[in-house]
Amino acid sequence: MNLLLLSNSRSPDGGYLNHAIELVRELAGARAKALFLPFAGVTTTWDEYTDKAGRALAPAGVALTGAHTVKPADIDAFELVIVGGGNTFQLTREARQRGWLHAIRRAAAAGMSYMGWSAGANLACPTICTTNDMPIVDPGGFDALGLIDVQINPHYTNALPAGHQGETRDQRLAEFMAVRPEMKIIGLPEGDWLRVRGKQMQLNGPFPARVFQGGREAVDVAPPAMLAE
Amino acid sequence: MNLLLLSNSRSPDGGYLNHAIELVRELAGARAKALFLPFAGVTTTWDEYTDKAGRALAPAGVALTGAHTVKPADIDAFELVIVGGGNTFQLTREARQRGWLHAIRRAAAAGMSYMGWSAGANLACPTICTTNDMPIVDPGGFDALGLIDVQINPHYTNALPAGHQGETRDQRLAEFMAVRPEMKIIGLPEGDWLRVRGKQMQLNGPFPARVFQGGREAVDVAPPAMLAE
Repeated sequence: MNLLLLSNSRSPDGGYLNHAIELVRELAGARAKALFLPFAGVTTTWDEYTDKAGRALAPAGVALTGAHTVKPADIDAFELVIVGGGNTFQLTREARQRGWLHAIRRAAAAGMSYMGWSAGANLACPTICTTNDMPIVDPGGFDALGLIDVQINPHYTNALPAGHQGETRDQRLAEFMAVRPEMKIIGLPEGDWLRVRGKQMQLNGPFPARVFQGGREAVDVAPPAMLAE
Repeated sequence: MNLLLLSNSRSPDGGYLNHAIELVRELAGARAKALFLPFAGVTTTWDEYTDKAGRALAPAGVALTGAHTVKPADIDAFELVIVGGGNTFQLTREARQRGWLHAIRRAAAAGMSYMGWSAGANLACPTICTTNDMPIVDPGGFDALGLIDVQINPHYTNALPAGHQGETRDQRLAEFMAVRPEMKIIGLPEGDWLRVRGKQMQLNGPFPARVFQGGREAVDVAPPAMLAE
């Protein structure tokens, strides 16, 4: 596996995918032909979303083709799969119904590079069960690509707005651990990313991640750190 | 329909279900026999959850029986259905698999009173698509009881923790409206509740609710206010 999984699309400076440009170049080399899955985009058209991501990543030398314009059988024409953030439920539904889940799983196992942020990072996990998104559509199953064997919680924070009595993020993740105690979760703060090479998984970025597993105390891990090797 | 749908279980003073006691008495009268659905409880046992809710609501004169200890065919032995908060996905899955969705729909249509908070308020809606909860298990479909024809977003707030770049609640609800523009959503702040009598729906509580519908500007409504009649 050759994966780049980012918590989110905004750099700490507020720029869109700024922090991803050098990372994409390192992941896939210069001049990569990239397949872009825009299906997490809900309040934008998929053409618009593909254009926006393509402009942002152009300095990395990648050229994007929207997955809504091609067929899964064409996947081997690309060197890199990029999955954009947005709504994880719609992303999973569209990717499943259009046959991309199966095609991407096969291509990634054969060595194709994969980059995703937010919902696109969740899609690389065994399930979508640790997304923060609103379940606006039924995804037809909560299983996802399973390119890694841990769950990511993107936009990780345990803060609540002042006075709010809803569950904290840690309480929400504790509910997942209660039903799936065998699964590890990486709470990935905004600005951080995971770089997966084969079985190695390295945590990078400015902030500590929080690693959870059922029955154990959560552990804060400062980057850079190897989470699996 | 005779429904009491609360945003959450904590009163503004921090007490558990304090603000519900007079409301339950008004809903179901004194000495009501209540069926309690504890299935949203994940990090507690269903016995413990039933006991806790039973102690909290004892001053209202209701006696609770856990739905995990009886069969849907027994529903007519009760005068009131109470559905506790917790995880909406697990609640919906258990209620569906055990046959309670069908039984409660039928009983409520025949006049049985229904009270729910948080996940229990979401279950009364057409779908669970406006829950804030983490999708820890597949509920086997996103359809819910449909006792009302609008969606509730419980624990409604549009605030974000300082510095956080994830979606605001309004952005999350906008995604739902993009795919279901015909559906009305009531953003119900903590401490507020809806009282449904027949086709009448009254908003009550200390804070304005925000009412959303696809293609229209969201409207803040100060309680008490009739939202449908």
